[in-house]
Amino acid sequence: MEDKVSDSLGRDGGQDVIFRDARREDVPEIVALLADDVLGAGREGDLDDAYWAAFELVEADPRNRLTVAEVNGTAAGTLQLTLIPGLSRHGMLRAQIEGVRVAADYRGHGLGRRMILWAISEARRAGCGMVQLTSDKERTGAIRFYESLGFTATHEGLKLVL
Amino acid sequence: MEDKVSDSLGRDGGQDVIFRDARREDVPEIVALLADDVLGAGREGDLDDAYWAAFELVEADPRNRLTVAEVNGTAAGTLQLTLIPGLSRHGMLRAQIEGVRVAADYRGHGLGRRMILWAISEARRAGCGMVQLTSDKERTGAIRFYESLGFTATHEGLKLVL
Repeated sequence: MEDKVSDSLGRDGGQDVIFRDARREDVPEIVALLADDVLGAGREGDLDDAYWAAFELVEADPRNRLTVAEVNGTAAGTLQLTLIPGLSRHGMLRAQIEGVRVAADYRGHGLGRRMILWAISEARRAGCGMVQLTSDKERTGAIRFYESLGFTATHEGLKLVL
Repeated sequence: MEDKVSDSLGRDGGQDVIFRDARREDVPEIVALLADDVLGAGREGDLDDAYWAAFELVEADPRNRLTVAEVNGTAAGTLQLTLIPGLSRHGMLRAQIEGVRVAADYRGHGLGRRMILWAISEARRAGCGMVQLTSDKERTGAIRFYESLGFTATHEGLKLVL
């Protein structure tokens, strides 16, 4: 889980992005990223035991990777990559992306694109045959962004809040 | 993983449905169920090592449950339930349903509904705050079915085949 990739933004600006597994001390920054979002704002809360317990579950699970995209020592972005084994599609392993956020100061400079390309590359390296995610239909910009990266919106994403 | 629930169809017909974790000897029947489907037919293949390896990954993973809905000793239906921990939504555990199939002989008698209600109940019991799934937009009947169970199609389901 300590697989680190240093990846340069290249001609876009030259700032290095380090993709690494989240550490316990990143949790406050990650929660702030999750909350700093039109839809996310109302869903997040005080940094209480629920977040720490969830972090521990993710950290201990070899099929879940909570990732930080670090720029200049700051958590500039985050996403979670989940590997889901299953019999469907000839026993295909699938990768799922959840909780994608880019810090306000880093939006519009290609960091989100680098993050998703990194996740696709990790999924391929893990032997996955598919990468999937759902995006709220209100996030029209995000949906166009994923389509520009090759995703197709073939499915309805159905949710039931308990 | 040996949590078994016996559940009667009640006034619909009175046949008992046993929900249980899939066993190694169920794999051929489950693969046949996955293949016996308009969209699934072209995606499945010979019962080779890929299926057995995938079964072993699922069986060994405490957050993945491949489930058989058994009626009269037959695998009448199958689904996979995956628990995904994460920081989003105040550290909410989510349950995801994949690979839902009902055998042709058992369609139209409420078995699919019992299966999804069972999965929702298991998700609640595991402490999940949400159940989610994606359904191909071509499956208009399936989407209406999930909506009738309380799911809302708030999200686009985006897929990228590698």
